[in-house]
Formats: sequence, structure tokens, C-alpha cells
Amino acid sequence: MRDFILPACVIAVLAIAGLGQNAQVAARATILKVIEDQQAAWNRHDLEGFMSGYWNSPELTFFSGAHESKGWQAALDRYRRNYQGAGHEMGKLEFANLRIEMLGPDAAFVRGEFHLTMSDGKTPYGLFTLLFRKFPEGWKIIHDHSSAE
Amino acid sequence: MRDFILPACVIAVLAIAGLGQNAQVAARATILKVIEDQQAAWNRHDLEGFMSGYWNSPELTFFSGAHESKGWQAALDRYRRNYQGAGHEMGKLEFANLRIEMLGPDAAFVRGEFHLTMSDGKTPYGLFTLLFRKFPEGWKIIHDHSSAE
Repeated sequence: MRDFILPACVIAVLAIAGLGQNAQVAARATILKVIEDQQAAWNRHDLEGFMSGYWNSPELTFFSGAHESKGWQAALDRYRRNYQGAGHEMGKLEFANLRIEMLGPDAAFVRGEFHLTMSDGKTPYGLFTLLFRKFPEGWKIIHDHSSAE
Repeated sequence: MRDFILPACVIAVLAIAGLGQNAQVAARATILKVIEDQQAAWNRHDLEGFMSGYWNSPELTFFSGAHESKGWQAALDRYRRNYQGAGHEMGKLEFANLRIEMLGPDAAFVRGEFHLTMSDGKTPYGLFTLLFRKFPEGWKIIHDHSSAE
């Protein structure tokens, strides 16, 4: 009997480790999809669609340069002012050099670059750090830190 | 017998939850201490001491504005150039509005503000996001995103 216990335990541990790895691969793919959906939403000028990647909560935080804003609605309002207000444009958005790192079964962070191409040929760019948490409704950004030159 | 099982289970669950809470409180206190030690090291112009809060690895990442640097040594070199080079000074550093959020038993992130007071009276300031991971040698910053005006 004992001869079977050790192999059975090894198989069980490997299975759990495998499940953990599979879960990580699935979580990373889901998070990447959230980010790709945001890029697509931005490029069709759908700010609400873009914002659906963010946690819809007054606790969402947004750091941009030395400015902090708090809450989903404030972030949307700020995007509207800065990219859809008079004399502004959204441009074409591309993310690059994305690195998704799992921090646990329900937390991850993402490092990357954003590149905008405007109609006048200007190409503003910068870096971002995103914190993701897993909610019943899916993976959402709970904190965004973006900065440019 | 059954009458005892449920209360025993409830006690066990509460004990585990309590342990988890205690561990979180302890981790937050340790992380806060790392940050306070960094502030003290900076203010006695001890850049190596300041850098001991960071993961001593080529994998450490540092985002500042639109600039990314990689690795502990590159971060130290950059600090030396920007704050100890000719015509530069470190100033007096204060952190403010610190928010430490646990993401799991070995991961946390910290949001906060940095305020510098320079000898000419200037007071540059900005925001930072720090990612911490727990290593055998303690809690260390694995990623720093800082940005100013």
C-alpha cells in the first residue's frame, strides 16, 4: 500500500503545480486581452470602452506626472478633457514592451510603454505601471501610474 | 460529537484569519520601516543605504518620466549622477500620503508622494508607485515608478 502513497502524492503535487501554472497562463492571457481591448477602444474613440478596463470604483487611483486623481468617474472626465476637449485629439494609441507579472492568484502588475501618433505627426510617448486585481466581474486595473517626458 | 465539530471549525477558521491579519499588519510595518529607512539614508546622503531598500538584481526596474532603467547598479549610478554629480544636491527628502496595500503574502504595492527641499528654496515633488516582494533577506522594491511635474 505504502508503495502507492508516495507516487500518488507526487502526482497530486505535480497536478496542483500544473493547475497553478495553467491558471497563471490563463490569467496573463486575460489581462493581455483587457489591455488589447483598451487599445482597440481608444483607437475607435470609445472612451467608455477604454475605461471598462478600470475598476469602476471611487477607490481607483490614477497617477499622471505629479497629478493624482481618484475614482473611475474622475479618470473618465480627465480623459474627456485632455483628449476629447476643444483643440484636443485622441491620436492612434499603441502599447509596447508589455510585461505582465503575476503577484498572486488575484493580483498582477503590468509594465509597458504607450506611444501616440497625432495628426500633426507628433508622437508623444511614455511609460506606465498598472496594478490589476481579479474581481467577480474579471481582471480590472485598480491603479494606473503613467508618465511622459 | 457533531455539536463540537462546527464550533471547532469556526474557531480554526477565525484563528487562521486572525493569523493572516497579524501577518498583514507585520508585513505592512516592515515595509513602512524599509521606506522610512530609505528616507533617513537619503537625508544623511547615504545613497548605498537608500538603495538597500531595492532588490539587488539586474531585474529591478525603474521608471522615471519616460525613462526606463534596469538593474540595481544602473539605478544607483543614475541617482549618483542626478543628485551627487557636479552642480547637483540631494536636498531634504520627505515622503507623504503613503498607502501600503498587500497583494498577497509576499507582494505589496505602495503609493505615495515625494517632496524635496533644496538649498535654494525650491521644492520639487512628485508621485511614486513601488512594487514590493518578500525575499529571504526581507521586503525589497522590485519596481519603482516615479514622476514629477
